[in-house]
Parts: sequence; structure tokens; C-alpha cells
Amino acid sequence: MTIENISSTKVFGGWHKQYSHQSAALNCTMRFAIYLPPQAEQQNVPVLYWLSGLTCTDENFMQKAGAQRIAAELGIAIVAPDTSPRGEGVADDKDGAYDFGLGAGFYLNATKPPFDQHYKMYDYVVSELPAIIEAHFPVTHQRSISGHSMGGHGALTIALKNPNHFNSVSAFSPISNPMDCPWGIKAFRGYLGDDQQQWQQYDSCELMKNIQQFVPALVDQGSNDNFLDEQLKPQALINVAKNKGYPLELRMQSGYDHSYYFIATFIEDHLRFHAKHLKIS
Amino acid sequence: MTIENISSTKVFGGWHKQYSHQSAALNCTMRFAIYLPPQAEQQNVPVLYWLSGLTCTDENFMQKAGAQRIAAELGIAIVAPDTSPRGEGVADDKDGAYDFGLGAGFYLNATKPPFDQHYKMYDYVVSELPAIIEAHFPVTHQRSISGHSMGGHGALTIALKNPNHFNSVSAFSPISNPMDCPWGIKAFRGYLGDDQQQWQQYDSCELMKNIQQFVPALVDQGSNDNFLDEQLKPQALINVAKNKGYPLELRMQSGYDHSYYFIATFIEDHLRFHAKHLKIS
Repeated sequence: MTIENISSTKVFGGWHKQYSHQSAALNCTMRFAIYLPPQAEQQNVPVLYWLSGLTCTDENFMQKAGAQRIAAELGIAIVAPDTSPRGEGVADDKDGAYDFGLGAGFYLNATKPPFDQHYKMYDYVVSELPAIIEAHFPVTHQRSISGHSMGGHGALTIALKNPNHFNSVSAFSPISNPMDCPWGIKAFRGYLGDDQQQWQQYDSCELMKNIQQFVPALVDQGSNDNFLDEQLKPQALINVAKNKGYPLELRMQSGYDHSYYFIATFIEDHLRFHAKHLKIS
Repeated sequence: MTIENISSTKVFGGWHKQYSHQSAALNCTMRFAIYLPPQAEQQNVPVLYWLSGLTCTDENFMQKAGAQRIAAELGIAIVAPDTSPRGEGVADDKDGAYDFGLGAGFYLNATKPPFDQHYKMYDYVVSELPAIIEAHFPVTHQRSISGHSMGGHGALTIALKNPNHFNSVSAFSPISNPMDCPWGIKAFRGYLGDDQQQWQQYDSCELMKNIQQFVPALVDQGSNDNFLDEQLKPQALINVAKNKGYPLELRMQSGYDHSYYFIATFIEDHLRFHAKHLKIS
């Protein structure tokens, strides 16, 4: 489990670092970024995992969200993986579409060839990446998870399926009901085939219907988001949470869109929410 | 003086907007960005002009610096122009270098053909752009100016030459003595020719030696900046300021580099510095 340092940059008194490593789950070379707050020089700190949206890499959130300021105050590390397997041997969408294949792994384990060879982002985020982080960095086993759009879908589904692994979950503009929107249907059909039983394993609404153990959840959604009605469908999630009595706070933010300007505006609330649920020594 | 809105995005309760317009000074179509804080819906607000570095456009600072949070608190608008004239008829470096021509206007008025046809960024930033901003937006005539690297050079030279136009100036990692570094010598020779009298009009150290009227100045410089010794030379500026008794605070920031992670870390200090010198109603 060797990892290779690519960059180290000081920011808000801590360090933003990028690493590459051979991933066993994904069967390719992957890159991730970690922000270590100043507190990590003295003690182990908890970790927030951030899952980005379509077309992103490890860099978008770290460069644009402004999260390091608050992570440095609270003493939380942030880990940002890439959004899909990468490299020459990795299958892509046949037309190079932005919403399937490279940059669009949807945080699931593909079962349909040829994508089943590399597209195992679920295993990577749930198991392999935390093991690497906890072996190589001054962090505790306290974890929370957050993400945006496709990454909001990833964060919610992963937390719902692994309530003992994550103390809290949050999302910006998540794809809330992927079985019922074009992005999700395209991805599920391409990665999983036509068996809707498999699809249900990666749909937040379906998962929430059957869940026994709750992970506290915060979701922010911009009211001027171009993808709101066709792709994101937060009302579906609100309805299930209400029926289920699930501790979900979903806030409609008036006038905000789908961009990182929206994330930057509310990321402080998300970090403070996670800090309440992470044991910080 | 028509301007055309390209985008409007809500961020920290205010609005990030991009516009294009025909520039008389630059003789081409230009784009700029403005952040209007929430206060601008009720009253006119002062303006901080931000000048970006080599290869940047109006977008880098707005996306990566995290300045809107503090601007929204303080009630300051931020305006970010592009870094050079643009478009098909605009001459570029013959080899397409990153440090001359497009994206590298150096905030001066070129006198050497063919660059004298469009490269008048000095006039654009000092006169045309503020006139446009003050005609079209709810702002006062209170202005400050800041920038990074080539834009730090631009901010310092423009403030030193126009002490009645700007209440305060700040810079991150400025090219402090361009007559004595490779970036500056290449740019000055290419835009101005061999007459060093002309060069002196755009060199912060030379201008500061002869100045009568002081504009309060704050400069941050990272100690791990790759360009520190060869290109930026802050010590030259410190020496002149000391001899002259100029009110310059130059802070060496241990461990920081030349990136926007550095800017994001200290932009709050810069905005609060400018706020002290801007009349905010």
C-alpha cells in the first residue's frame, strides 16, 4: 500500500497534499488529495470524505470550496478522491459523454462488462481509501462524508449503507433518486445492466425506505439549480425521510445554482454540522 | 458604453456577474467580473479592483480566493478584469509563451508595434473600467486595488501613479522590480522597446523612489514561492520603502507558495485592510 506524494501546498496553516497510488479495488493508478489541518501536527484528527460531481477530479473542491479555512479552525482533515477510475486501460463512454465513464463513476460497483473491470468506486471509497488514509496520515477512525451532485448521491448512498462507518453525512444538490432521472438511469443501465434490484442498492430513496440505523444528514439545494427538476428531485428524498422519520435536514437555498459558488457559500455550515458528530480530541 | 451580461450567480448572499463590452482603450471586446455584496441592494458600496497574474482571466480570483465571504460581510464590491486584450486581431507572443502577449498584458500602455494597437491595460484599469463600473453599478467613487504576481505589480504601479484614485493598495507576491527580473525585462522590451526611461514608469521601485503622495500598502509574500528570488524580489521594494519612509507593510509568510491557496489564506487580511481605508456608508 505505497503512496507517492505529488504536491504539498501550505494553506490556512495546514497542508494540502496530493498523492498517487495503485488501487486494488479499481485496478488502476489513482490520485487523491488530503487537507491536513494545523492540529494534525500535534494529534490525530477526524476525516471528512468529499465526493465530487460529474467531470471533477480531486482538485475542484480543494480549489474552489474554501473549506480549508473552517477545517483548520475545527481540526478536521478532508480527503477528496477522483470521480472514477482513470488511465489508458479504463473503459469510457463510447461517445465520450461527460455523464458516463471517465469522471462519472457514480460511486458504485459496476457489474456489467467492460465497466466491471475498473469501475468499483463504491469499494474504493468505503474500504480501500479509508484504509490508506488511516495507515498513512495522523487521523482517527472518526469519519464523515459529503459530496456534490453525483457526489452527493455517492455520500448519501454510502452513508445509508454503512451507518457504522460514518458519523454523519451531508450533500449539496445530490442526485436524490437516480432510478428516476436521466443521469441515474443512464449510469445504472450502463454500469449495472437492466436488473432494477441492483439499481435499488444505489438509490438514496430506495435505501432510506428500508434502513434501520440512522446517520444524521444535512442537504442543501439551490432553488435556481438548472438540474433541479429533471435530475436532482430532492422532493422524493424529503417524502421518504418524512414517512420514515429519518433525521434529514434539507434546506432549499433561494436563488442559488449548481456551482461551486453555492458550495462555497454553505460549506461552513456543513463542516460545523459534521464537527458536532465527529469526536474531536 | 454598453455592457452585456454573460452570467449571474448568487454567492454569499450577493451576486457574481460577468459582462462583456467593447473597450475603447483596448480596441477589442473585453470581459470582466464583478461581485456585488448584499449591501449593494440597499446602498452604493466601494470597490476593490483585483488584477490577476500571468495566464489568468476574470475567473481565477473569483473562483479560488474565497473573497466573496468577507466582501459580503464588509460591504465591498470586487471587480476583476482580464489580464490582457483578447480576440482574433490581438497580437500574441510569436512563440505563444505564457509570459508575454495574451494573458500577460502587464498593466501598461504598449508603445512598440504591433502591441501598441491593443495592449493598453494601464488606461483600461485606471480610467475606462472604473468609468464603466461607476456608470452601471451601485458603487461609490471609493476605490482600492490589489493583485497577484503580475497583477501585484499592476496594483502597486497603478496606485503609486494615481494616489488620488485609490485609497489603498495591496499585493500578493508582486513582481516588485520588473526592470531587474526576466519576466519584467521581456515584457518591457516587447511592449515598450529599449528606452529604459519608459520602463521606469512601470516599475514599483523606481516609482516609489520619486513619489510625493503615499497610498497605504500591504504586501504578502510566501517564503516557499518558486519565483521569489529570480522574479519577485520583494527586498528591492522593502529597501526603497525604508529609504523613503513609505507606509508599506510587507509580510513574509513562512512556508507559503505562489498559488491561490496562499491568496485564499490571507485575502481576509487584505479586505479588512482595504475596508479601513474605504469609506463604507
